[in-house]
Amino acid sequence: MTLTAPHSLDPQGTPMTSLLPSYVSGSWWTADAAASTSEVRDASTGEVVTRVSTEGLDLAGALEYARSVGQQSLGALTFHQRAVLLKQFALALTERKAELYELSARTGATKTDSWVDIDGGIGVLFSYSGKGRRELPNSQVYVDGPVEPLSKDGSFLGRHIYTRLPGVAVQINAFNFPVWGSLEKFAPAFLAGMPTLVKPATPTGYLAEAFVRILVESGLLPEGSLQLVSGSVPDLFDNLQLGDIVGFTGSASTATSLRAHTAVQTGGVRFTAETDSINASVLGTDAVQGTPEFDAYVRQLVTEMTTKAGQKCTAIRRAIVPATTADAVIEAVRARIAEKVVLGDPRAEGTSMGPLASTAQRDEVLRQVGALVAAGGEIVVGSTDAPEVLLADGSRGAASDGAFVSPVLLRFDDASVEAVHELEAFGPVSSLLTYATTAEAADLVARGGGSLVTSVATHDPAQAVELAGRIAAYNGRMLLLDRDDARSSTGHGSPLPNLVHGGPGRAGGGEELGGIRAVLHHMQRTAVQGSPEMLTALTGVWHAGAAAQSEGRHPFRKSLAELRIGDQIASATREVTLDDIETFAHFTGDTFYAHMDEDAAAANPFFPGRVAHGYLLVSWAAGLFVDPEPGPVLANYGLENLRFITPVSPGDTIRVTLTAKQITPRETDEYGEVRWDAVIHNQNDEIVANYDVLTLVAKE
Amino acid sequence: MTLTAPHSLDPQGTPMTSLLPSYVSGSWWTADAAASTSEVRDASTGEVVTRVSTEGLDLAGALEYARSVGQQSLGALTFHQRAVLLKQFALALTERKAELYELSARTGATKTDSWVDIDGGIGVLFSYSGKGRRELPNSQVYVDGPVEPLSKDGSFLGRHIYTRLPGVAVQINAFNFPVWGSLEKFAPAFLAGMPTLVKPATPTGYLAEAFVRILVESGLLPEGSLQLVSGSVPDLFDNLQLGDIVGFTGSASTATSLRAHTAVQTGGVRFTAETDSINASVLGTDAVQGTPEFDAYVRQLVTEMTTKAGQKCTAIRRAIVPATTADAVIEAVRARIAEKVVLGDPRAEGTSMGPLASTAQRDEVLRQVGALVAAGGEIVVGSTDAPEVLLADGSRGAASDGAFVSPVLLRFDDASVEAVHELEAFGPVSSLLTYATTAEAADLVARGGGSLVTSVATHDPAQAVELAGRIAAYNGRMLLLDRDDARSSTGHGSPLPNLVHGGPGRAGGGEELGGIRAVLHHMQRTAVQGSPEMLTALTGVWHAGAAAQSEGRHPFRKSLAELRIGDQIASATREVTLDDIETFAHFTGDTFYAHMDEDAAAANPFFPGRVAHGYLLVSWAAGLFVDPEPGPVLANYGLENLRFITPVSPGDTIRVTLTAKQITPRETDEYGEVRWDAVIHNQNDEIVANYDVLTLVAKE
Repeated sequence: MTLTAPHSLDPQGTPMTSLLPSYVSGSWWTADAAASTSEVRDASTGEVVTRVSTEGLDLAGALEYARSVGQQSLGALTFHQRAVLLKQFALALTERKAELYELSARTGATKTDSWVDIDGGIGVLFSYSGKGRRELPNSQVYVDGPVEPLSKDGSFLGRHIYTRLPGVAVQINAFNFPVWGSLEKFAPAFLAGMPTLVKPATPTGYLAEAFVRILVESGLLPEGSLQLVSGSVPDLFDNLQLGDIVGFTGSASTATSLRAHTAVQTGGVRFTAETDSINASVLGTDAVQGTPEFDAYVRQLVTEMTTKAGQKCTAIRRAIVPATTADAVIEAVRARIAEKVVLGDPRAEGTSMGPLASTAQRDEVLRQVGALVAAGGEIVVGSTDAPEVLLADGSRGAASDGAFVSPVLLRFDDASVEAVHELEAFGPVSSLLTYATTAEAADLVARGGGSLVTSVATHDPAQAVELAGRIAAYNGRMLLLDRDDARSSTGHGSPLPNLVHGGPGRAGGGEELGGIRAVLHHMQRTAVQGSPEMLTALTGVWHAGAAAQSEGRHPFRKSLAELRIGDQIASATREVTLDDIETFAHFTGDTFYAHMDEDAAAANPFFPGRVAHGYLLVSWAAGLFVDPEPGPVLANYGLENLRFITPVSPGDTIRVTLTAKQITPRETDEYGEVRWDAVIHNQNDEIVANYDVLTLVAKE
Repeated sequence: MTLTAPHSLDPQGTPMTSLLPSYVSGSWWTADAAASTSEVRDASTGEVVTRVSTEGLDLAGALEYARSVGQQSLGALTFHQRAVLLKQFALALTERKAELYELSARTGATKTDSWVDIDGGIGVLFSYSGKGRRELPNSQVYVDGPVEPLSKDGSFLGRHIYTRLPGVAVQINAFNFPVWGSLEKFAPAFLAGMPTLVKPATPTGYLAEAFVRILVESGLLPEGSLQLVSGSVPDLFDNLQLGDIVGFTGSASTATSLRAHTAVQTGGVRFTAETDSINASVLGTDAVQGTPEFDAYVRQLVTEMTTKAGQKCTAIRRAIVPATTADAVIEAVRARIAEKVVLGDPRAEGTSMGPLASTAQRDEVLRQVGALVAAGGEIVVGSTDAPEVLLADGSRGAASDGAFVSPVLLRFDDASVEAVHELEAFGPVSSLLTYATTAEAADLVARGGGSLVTSVATHDPAQAVELAGRIAAYNGRMLLLDRDDARSSTGHGSPLPNLVHGGPGRAGGGEELGGIRAVLHHMQRTAVQGSPEMLTALTGVWHAGAAAQSEGRHPFRKSLAELRIGDQIASATREVTLDDIETFAHFTGDTFYAHMDEDAAAANPFFPGRVAHGYLLVSWAAGLFVDPEPGPVLANYGLENLRFITPVSPGDTIRVTLTAKQITPRETDEYGEVRWDAVIHNQNDEIVANYDVLTLVAKE
């Protein structure tokens, strides 16, 4: 089946192509034919694409369905199992992405814009699938930070754990990236184990409906893990409660009004906002015309003005350049736009920039440009006149029902004007400001009141460090652009799954993405205090002092299926002689004086005299704990947190205790990771060294 | 000088013992004699202790002083330098703590209560001083998480950094712990580099004034790093801005009204609240009378009811016990209170529980008890009658001007009554509820709507795990009490510097303490993208791909003063023979089949045949990179993040590259830590292993 238009059956079974369905409480739902609806139009042609209505939708029921059925089905899965599903979702979407591209063009998105939205969204799923399996345990509790000893005798310990929130993750999305904007919130929520309810922006909600439909039809979704409401939800917040989280993307003013609801203010509902901000891009004083940084800066500025017709929360709104370079920048921007930018219907061959999402958006952007001009801005590139564009049939002409706006660069002679730091024209519009000193440039960046991102084009590390020191706290992301990364840079305007997205103040104060960081935003951090035994039970990680089993078979003889947390081998002892130290030194070449020269070693503040190599000790420890015959233990792939505590002198005796600490079977391999706690003691039972040994062990 | 009473000079130089000064903009300030003031009274006797007024105080000036002078003086210090100062503050307070204890008794605090407040507060300073030096770099930027590769060629990387917020940290504190409550917020703010303005609660503000005075008189405070406002600050929030943070402790209703201010809602001011919550303590079904858990539970419950006369945000308000054990718990609580609790003036010998902080608090607590009774609670231990108490002179009698309340335990037959989960009597008052199943107990805990802490007394790991799975997300902290930790437990009601303090929902939704976690709450996390060179400059940590210097002297010959990030030694090569592998195997005892048995090794999914030991490789690498003669490198104290990537077969050749990655001079020792990036390559330039080598290096 294809998805060229929304398609569903009304309750009576009559084909009704024009009313966009919702997916709630386990089934597709469409408003009654008599319901009042809103029309959604094609961005280039103004044709009606679909209509939306939520009249009669049981939103409270959908939320409760998520909290009961969704929580239960996701709670039955481990982090890794959820991660594997994310990859399968990505593959299901990839298989049918042509359908999404076709619909995306109707939103005004060019192929490139659609790639950012659709392939970008799928990329987030792949990224979280990988990170989930590499960076999370294959269980349901995430342990944060080291053990905190709380008593001298070791019987009372502290630890921090994250457990998932018990409610529903509600997304309220912006119109500009209906696929990416939804998947970038869905992936971490899903991985955390929270069910999601998506509320897309109406102008492009049909594209969100399409991807949700593909996922539903894939049959892969755990029950209740993803719901979709196509249309408005005026009483949403009245139905939220402690344990729920809202992820909002959109305007700062809408964020403010939503945040004010008592559910957030006193009800304990988490609210995270990512709002369009007045982002800046600073050109360094070294980056004069003719430098690679100047060129990279101009290229990036034009890209950010025109990609997605400038409808990006992360777009550059303020180009902050040295006064001496300003004219050259303007000239270069004008030339590049003339050379590269073709405004038109995304379905026309040759179009490089599409219309805005709707004529309402077009009118709003032109109104804001007017306000910027009134505040002292001079339009130095482009104009606000209705542009001639490339039409779908390949001809050029006016498109009065299309939402087209030309790229516009304004120049402000007075950089301190409030409007340029506060007003946002959410389209292909940037303003150029000039500065004299680095401190002045930083002050201008800060005037934005908190941004998603600021980029800096300079090849001078000193200027980069000074600027960063002054502006980092005002930004969620900073991109440093120079000749070394100009070709590989992913660009000012591109949030990435592994980097946090969001910013302070005007940018909403929220944080999304950033890999596992966003997963943890869907969980509660709790400090846990208890005995080693209890913390072991709670975390699935063995804590020193908890029970250990050293009877029976050597733990290296046990497969993952047989091995238990706390399985232990306490080795025999072995004496270290001066001869051993010399042998090791000559074999390895490590003749460091602390091992070879009694007087020099004794003069060292940490050693009583010649001591054994740390490497000798861990090598011998392996010899003491290893069970050499072929068996389930496949490889030692690493070592972590090794600390040498007490030096070992000739004549000392060592022994090692190795305990299974954490077991992580892989979902898609015939083996998994086992982390072992290793402690080397001396003849006085002092700790010589401790560390974690990382091994791969077969499942059977 | 002593601090038995507030003491200051008014602007005319006339001794005026009764008006409590503020410390703002670098000097002590007291309101004009004509100002209207509030009286503060002794909790036991009702005598006037002091008066407060902020009439005429330039609060906006004080905040701006912090943002300019305070930010500048703290910005001149590294994390470690600030950490060293914290320890000096702790020592200065310790030296004069007798003065604080004397004043503390006037607030109604017993010796034990004062110990929690005063020594507890000093302990937070010591703890943060230690953690700051152990867990933070000796610089000003904190790096969060690993490098995120963003391009295939390694020229574009991502990293997350934390930089301090550019504003002021304002504390709004509760009356119950005037010293601890202030220092637990001050320590992490100071360590982050943020200046603090303390606004204590008026009833006990004279004790906060006393500790601030000691710190000011110590001469140790960086200019502008600590200010104190004694009295009300009605227009505080009007003067806050992006970059400022407010740490509030107090009632949920006050938190709600403060949070609603536009400075927080739209101005980007961070607001973190820690509010009193309806904390629970659950007795496990296994913990029947006669078990150590039963006894520990009762002891803890009585302690929490009576310490600080129950005026703790973390006190147990709901005792949730199996229906079958309820009568036994009540009887045991009654007996223990009768045996252990002596209500009286803290200055009287033998007093174990003091009055509430004020008669207003007393009246409010009795009103709440009345409301609980009206909602169905039956008082089963204690009474609301005015108690006979131990007076300061040792006699027993009524103290009508004192704020005394007896410990009260209520019992609710209907655990579902709303009042018991919502009303708080902020005094020596708890309510007992009963449950039948673990799920029911968990539901009751959750009914509190988010708590600072829940404790669970059980020796059954299965019940602990089930309960935790259901309630962790409703709690900032969970304490698991059993026979193993009953003696070493720090108790239900005690926040610790190394564990997070705060909770979701009703508990305020904030997070304090938790070691470095609270420092980071005073900083902004920013994703940074750039070339390895730029990220190295920005973070002070060498990134692979950045410039390295391998000319001239071996880096082991350089002291900390001479060594630079990027100093590198690229070693000679060395071939690994089968003979070497055998020699190593027999020397270490590590005869694991992958090194010894060609067929078995080849059958392993990861190895082409017999391979060298990982331990051999890192030992040889040390032999290849070490410069053996005595010099500034003192010791290799550990190894981190070792990963074996490519196996090494007989006949392969290895080499190692060692690069100075991070340099951390110690403030109080003649040496510091150097972290080296180590990479072992084979003859095909494939990476064999990478890891960090940790060394101690002399400063000179």
